[in-house]
Amino acid sequence: MKVGVRRSMYFLPTLRETPAEATLLSHKLMLRAGLIRQASSGLYNWLPLGFRVLKKIEEIVRQEQDRIGAHECLMPTIQSAELWQKSGRYEDYGKEMLRIKDRHGRALLYGPTNEEAITSLFAETVKTYKELPQRLYHIQWKFRDEIRPRFGVMRAREFYMKDAYSFDYDKKQGIDSYNAMFVSYLRLFQRLGMQAIPMRADTGPIGGDSSHEFVIVAETGESSLYCDSEMLSMRWSSGSSGESNNDAKKHAEMVSLATSHYAATDEEYNPQEFESRVPAERRIKTRGIEVGHVFFFGDKYSKPLNAYITTATGKEVAVQMGSYGVGISRLAAAIIEASHDDSGIVWPPAVAPFQVGLIELGGEKVEVGEVQDDGLYAMLCREGVETLYDDRTDVSAGVKFAEMDLLGLPWQLIVGGKNAKQGTVEVKNRKSGKRESIALGKAVSYLRQNITSKHASIFD
Amino acid sequence: MKVGVRRSMYFLPTLRETPAEATLLSHKLMLRAGLIRQASSGLYNWLPLGFRVLKKIEEIVRQEQDRIGAHECLMPTIQSAELWQKSGRYEDYGKEMLRIKDRHGRALLYGPTNEEAITSLFAETVKTYKELPQRLYHIQWKFRDEIRPRFGVMRAREFYMKDAYSFDYDKKQGIDSYNAMFVSYLRLFQRLGMQAIPMRADTGPIGGDSSHEFVIVAETGESSLYCDSEMLSMRWSSGSSGESNNDAKKHAEMVSLATSHYAATDEEYNPQEFESRVPAERRIKTRGIEVGHVFFFGDKYSKPLNAYITTATGKEVAVQMGSYGVGISRLAAAIIEASHDDSGIVWPPAVAPFQVGLIELGGEKVEVGEVQDDGLYAMLCREGVETLYDDRTDVSAGVKFAEMDLLGLPWQLIVGGKNAKQGTVEVKNRKSGKRESIALGKAVSYLRQNITSKHASIFD
Repeated sequence: MKVGVRRSMYFLPTLRETPAEATLLSHKLMLRAGLIRQASSGLYNWLPLGFRVLKKIEEIVRQEQDRIGAHECLMPTIQSAELWQKSGRYEDYGKEMLRIKDRHGRALLYGPTNEEAITSLFAETVKTYKELPQRLYHIQWKFRDEIRPRFGVMRAREFYMKDAYSFDYDKKQGIDSYNAMFVSYLRLFQRLGMQAIPMRADTGPIGGDSSHEFVIVAETGESSLYCDSEMLSMRWSSGSSGESNNDAKKHAEMVSLATSHYAATDEEYNPQEFESRVPAERRIKTRGIEVGHVFFFGDKYSKPLNAYITTATGKEVAVQMGSYGVGISRLAAAIIEASHDDSGIVWPPAVAPFQVGLIELGGEKVEVGEVQDDGLYAMLCREGVETLYDDRTDVSAGVKFAEMDLLGLPWQLIVGGKNAKQGTVEVKNRKSGKRESIALGKAVSYLRQNITSKHASIFD
Repeated sequence: MKVGVRRSMYFLPTLRETPAEATLLSHKLMLRAGLIRQASSGLYNWLPLGFRVLKKIEEIVRQEQDRIGAHECLMPTIQSAELWQKSGRYEDYGKEMLRIKDRHGRALLYGPTNEEAITSLFAETVKTYKELPQRLYHIQWKFRDEIRPRFGVMRAREFYMKDAYSFDYDKKQGIDSYNAMFVSYLRLFQRLGMQAIPMRADTGPIGGDSSHEFVIVAETGESSLYCDSEMLSMRWSSGSSGESNNDAKKHAEMVSLATSHYAATDEEYNPQEFESRVPAERRIKTRGIEVGHVFFFGDKYSKPLNAYITTATGKEVAVQMGSYGVGISRLAAAIIEASHDDSGIVWPPAVAPFQVGLIELGGEKVEVGEVQDDGLYAMLCREGVETLYDDRTDVSAGVKFAEMDLLGLPWQLIVGGKNAKQGTVEVKNRKSGKRESIALGKAVSYLRQNITSKHASIFD
């Protein structure tokens, strides 16, 4: 990804007015900040700024999957209907499934999820317990034909999702994989700068024995959320890279801790249990958005799709499986729901499209002399500080300030005006609103330091 | 992407026999080397090793697009039929277009290309010449419903493509954009380690005034290729990062040079012209594979889709456009066609899934003592050397050697056996076949140096 871009040459169609089509706050802000544009009902174009956010979330998801020893692959978006007939879900899925006939009249579908596809791939290729455990994931577009797609990318028809699948030779190992993925999600949401609460969930159309959903706290969220405030202060260590089933014990402890306090959405909420288990001063009632879901379903798919392996004792057994989904495009919207203010988006640094917005007060070009020149922008780029440089000369300072607040980059660097005369620039922290005057020569190192320490703090 | 993986825990289902389904060499090798598996007719799963290749190609394409000032966005795979009715291509495209009806009976399609979609997005958002030139690209899955999909990912139904689009306010600027993309492709193929030859081409269903296709030289390629040997020795400078229309003159010179010598595929081949223009000793007849195509088509799409802008003099004009495609999934196969030997794939370092294959001769564990331990693997990973570590203990040395040759990683590092007793390891260059014994303590720095210089040489 480019380190820096100039606003004057960027494709960033921001909007001053909120478009009538949007009701949800994140949807409004994503349209106004030029992150997305609707292509057609429930289908969205990711404009360059939004695309950067999507890729940043994707990369963090990838790193946290890699960390627990999962391997990335990629399955096609289009699947054969045959597999879904075998698992019995072809009819079950109803009208949400986008069904297609190819030129030869063969029944295809746009994958809403990939249990069948990956189980079939596994059945073809793995034959013995020696090759287990195996954890595979892919990050791919999915389609669910929502009856009334609304809410922007929060509930789009075509959406970007990471789905992982675990394969183990017995239930105990299967639960180890489930726990590893669970921990991967705890770390993921923490790195994204979110408060995520795991809670026991219905298994729904995926089916199976055990399931948790991960809900991030957002006051504008879709569902009510009741929880013990202890849930909100938990912090997770990042763990070593390439950890695997060796860490099963540690993962089990983390899962146990993460599920030890009361937490429930509307559907599962029980006022009596809430009051008996949680002291009054720790009872939190807020709202949340589901952003991830993990399932352990044993042999539900391996049996019909014939994914059997030979055990150490020569027995043939159906492989034990789980699946683990995180909506990446949905997360972009959910993060905005959880992190914004009256002026616009407030991106957590880990997913901000750029770290710095450099604002040039073009109206005063004559007065500010050298400061006006591209030196600062070039220096930021050279130092690897991701910068959006508002270099426009036909736009007022007020418009630039308001737009930069709307875009929500963590830092603003304002060059020109009275600061320039004193050889200083103004640094503004978007989240706190705090402003500082800094000597021009020190601005880059100040930002580098703050950005580095911010990122570092995300990791541990 | 992970720096290192252990073969014993990786998902790498290689095949000793060539599957009957494959006739094309790259298809056979991709199946045998565990890069892909067919999911269904013309639809492929990218297994972890193949996925790494796909991502490496994608990243180089991205960097070369960014270098000429293009901005990355992402459009959905599913498009509304309405746009294609406006451009007149809905009927033209015939049965290759995958046509879909959603739950409300609305006509959709799986995009085979995106001229309509991006022109419509542009028309909604850009109104004045001041915002031009604009170059946008995306890297997304496409679908063409081939009547008889064969040849693996070389001609799959679902395929991964980078398509870029340029928008300019007059034809002269439009040609500048065309030239910039042309140069981006020259650099791209050079970085991938390929000999790519641009040649004048039919505009086909895209339409327009000007078009070139890029063909890479591969003896097993799909079409005959006649050219001046001068075409094969041209080298391109990498250029600065973030170059834009300022470099129009340089780009025009590079395009002129790259098209100055005779080159033609079957269709355009004219024996008389070939003989008159090319001295006998420089006449090359070989085979090639089309991997990229660039088009300049003026207002063919902007007029019907209403993409007009206001010029400096206040006139309303239809924007001048071009489109520029590179098949990324296709390239993975084309590179193999161009770079293999009797033992398997020979990856150019820039796209190799790993740089080093570390082979442990497990049968002799007892004798080799410390060398056997994970020290070398851990050190390679720490130093950022991408390593596939064949740590299997139940497989013979012969099988390991043959498989590593098949996989085609640029370097092999062989640990154990008689070398171990002398405190050395064997380093093998996959391409040249050259082997060297190196002191164990120097192996990592030797590889780091060779890998770095290899990559450096790709850039200039």
